[in-house]
Amino acid sequence: MFISFDGVDGAGKSTQVRLLREWLVARGKQVVTCRDPGSTSLGEKLREVLLSHHDVAIHRRSEMLLYMAARAQLVEEVIRPALGRGEWVLSDRYLLANVVYQAHAGGMNIEEVWQTGRVATGGLMPNLTIVLDMPAAAARARQGRPPDRMEAQGLDYLEKVRQGFLTEATAGRVPIVVFAADRQPGVIHAEVVATVEQLLAGLAGGS
Amino acid sequence: MFISFDGVDGAGKSTQVRLLREWLVARGKQVVTCRDPGSTSLGEKLREVLLSHHDVAIHRRSEMLLYMAARAQLVEEVIRPALGRGEWVLSDRYLLANVVYQAHAGGMNIEEVWQTGRVATGGLMPNLTIVLDMPAAAARARQGRPPDRMEAQGLDYLEKVRQGFLTEATAGRVPIVVFAADRQPGVIHAEVVATVEQLLAGLAGGS
Repeated sequence: MFISFDGVDGAGKSTQVRLLREWLVARGKQVVTCRDPGSTSLGEKLREVLLSHHDVAIHRRSEMLLYMAARAQLVEEVIRPALGRGEWVLSDRYLLANVVYQAHAGGMNIEEVWQTGRVATGGLMPNLTIVLDMPAAAARARQGRPPDRMEAQGLDYLEKVRQGFLTEATAGRVPIVVFAADRQPGVIHAEVVATVEQLLAGLAGGS
Repeated sequence: MFISFDGVDGAGKSTQVRLLREWLVARGKQVVTCRDPGSTSLGEKLREVLLSHHDVAIHRRSEMLLYMAARAQLVEEVIRPALGRGEWVLSDRYLLANVVYQAHAGGMNIEEVWQTGRVATGGLMPNLTIVLDMPAAAARARQGRPPDRMEAQGLDYLEKVRQGFLTEATAGRVPIVVFAADRQPGVIHAEVVATVEQLLAGLAGGS
């Protein structure tokens, strides 16, 4: 089972990943957590190039392709092997983030980013993506640290990101559920667990 | 006018780029030469990751996408601006190399690499690609230096690369001419010049 978490930075992804991981481990599941970009030697190297403030110019198409390269490595080195062993994979971001940040908010062609993502991942998509939704200004205020390269682009951009997530949630390309993130982590976690249980019941019931 | 040179390493690409550049400059043309991957800060950084022997694992899909990221940057930072100023661009390799090395020889899906390449380049293809063809063993013998990461994969692989170039030359996706490379550089250069003159005459004559 492969579940990704997404949403603007500050919405609480890492907390929800940790809570779901603890819940699964308490039920005897083997769980691998990862972050995209990252979680491989190549991916962490590219993450540094992508997210640090530095002097190397990066065009938006190059940027999109570097995210894809990191993701391709993550899929082959971490996610596919874990799924092959029957383990759970919880990822902090995945392809959807690329689509939303680079296309919906950044102006690239939405279908081209999905298409390139299917090539990069060999078609491996999460069974479920959980989007934590909140207004961009509120998310930024919660972070309490200087914004990274992607975050430094202003609140207008981050509002486009938010709308991108909401649009993709209704587009039906991949299964996405949206939770309001401006609530207590435990309340959100309970809803995440209920959704995961529904997903498992659906799989167990077959169709 | 945008012309790329390709073929297995050792076939004499850089010599032919230099000779054509000198021929064009002698006729008053402004000429930009570049190499793919490379010729931008990001591209040279990625070239180092791709071609050096190092300890970072790189899956073939990641590798393909890193070449694409370097190329996207090269297009935006070097090639498109030069063409916009009415200058000539001569590139040592371009998208065709990715298609041939990663797909024809490396086993990736050929259409997926072309498709990803069209996204990466924004559809910018050379007016002409000149492939310098020779048997892999002969090309390697001419190099006289240790093989890099791509070259170290054996002669079987390099023969698949050669066949890939020949197959693409007849596929009609992009204009490609093939010259036998196991001849004197001046002889090959004369044929390159004749081909470029034909291309210019064709453009001048309209259609």
